[in-house]
Amino acid sequence: MMPLLNAHTDITEQALNAIAHMPTRSLPVLMDDDFAGRLTDAEVMRIAVLLARKSYDEGGCPIGAVIVDNATRRIVGKGHNTLVQESHPYNHGETSAIRDAGRIDFSATTLYTSLSPCDVCATLLYMRGFSRVVVGDVTNASGNEALLREKGVAVEILEDPTGIDLYARFRLEKPDQHMEDWKGLSAL
Amino acid sequence: MMPLLNAHTDITEQALNAIAHMPTRSLPVLMDDDFAGRLTDAEVMRIAVLLARKSYDEGGCPIGAVIVDNATRRIVGKGHNTLVQESHPYNHGETSAIRDAGRIDFSATTLYTSLSPCDVCATLLYMRGFSRVVVGDVTNASGNEALLREKGVAVEILEDPTGIDLYARFRLEKPDQHMEDWKGLSAL
Repeated sequence: MMPLLNAHTDITEQALNAIAHMPTRSLPVLMDDDFAGRLTDAEVMRIAVLLARKSYDEGGCPIGAVIVDNATRRIVGKGHNTLVQESHPYNHGETSAIRDAGRIDFSATTLYTSLSPCDVCATLLYMRGFSRVVVGDVTNASGNEALLREKGVAVEILEDPTGIDLYARFRLEKPDQHMEDWKGLSAL
Repeated sequence: MMPLLNAHTDITEQALNAIAHMPTRSLPVLMDDDFAGRLTDAEVMRIAVLLARKSYDEGGCPIGAVIVDNATRRIVGKGHNTLVQESHPYNHGETSAIRDAGRIDFSATTLYTSLSPCDVCATLLYMRGFSRVVVGDVTNASGNEALLREKGVAVEILEDPTGIDLYARFRLEKPDQHMEDWKGLSAL
């Protein structure tokens, strides 16, 4: 059976949203390699932003991330922040996606994050040897891009205005949660 | 019903092992506050080592950690490495115990780790504002104690010979897993 998203399907916001919500192990049911191979960096970033939107709709911090295999362009991990949803002290977008991918060789992958990585995530990204990190928002938070480059990780900034607007709204609505998530200052 | 471990119970290796294996939320069934209050730093460290032993017996990396509330001496989180068991890229002793504790104010707690923290865990420890970290092994690995002190975390070295022997044996048996866990170099 040909997956819903294939060589003949347009890349729409609805398609990207379905990809964001589908469990990673079930993605082959939803899209084939041709569709995955046509996704641009900006479209993969939009998937990360739609994961951030999912978290926001659940009452959580709106940050998402997607990990793509450099050779096949397959999505091998993705996730969003669950500080609030799971009372999880460090399940950020990046840690969530990396945990979803499991114990693989990350040096052959790129991580797309909707928000600039915090100290913990930046450390994990260089320690687990990612080849490339694409950052969707350095407007609401930034600071570890230079560290990543020093450690040999290629960093690209590809800002997504929808994601930036969403995070800016969250910061205004819940400044304490932003500070807890970004700087570890307990908001409880 | 008075818990099994109380004011009249000796602190034995069997008692510490039962504490290590009991789910944190169920610990009040096993021991009361008097027993918890009598545990010395060395005995809490031994619980971390017994968690490391549990992981080793499961075929995993032998590293454990325990988080104690400074005022009550209650155990509020604990865990061990699950790189192998869960194919988890960064569930180290410290990250496991912090996830187990959930979203609490870590500035009122001490974390006991059977092995010196890696870059990711050291970053998480200062970012989440721990007041004190006790390290049970700087023989098999070390390096981030100075960083933690710079960031305002009190660090004490309290080496546990049983834990050091166990980790040394693991390093000899599975050097690739040690390097993957400690430096992020994929062993797969």
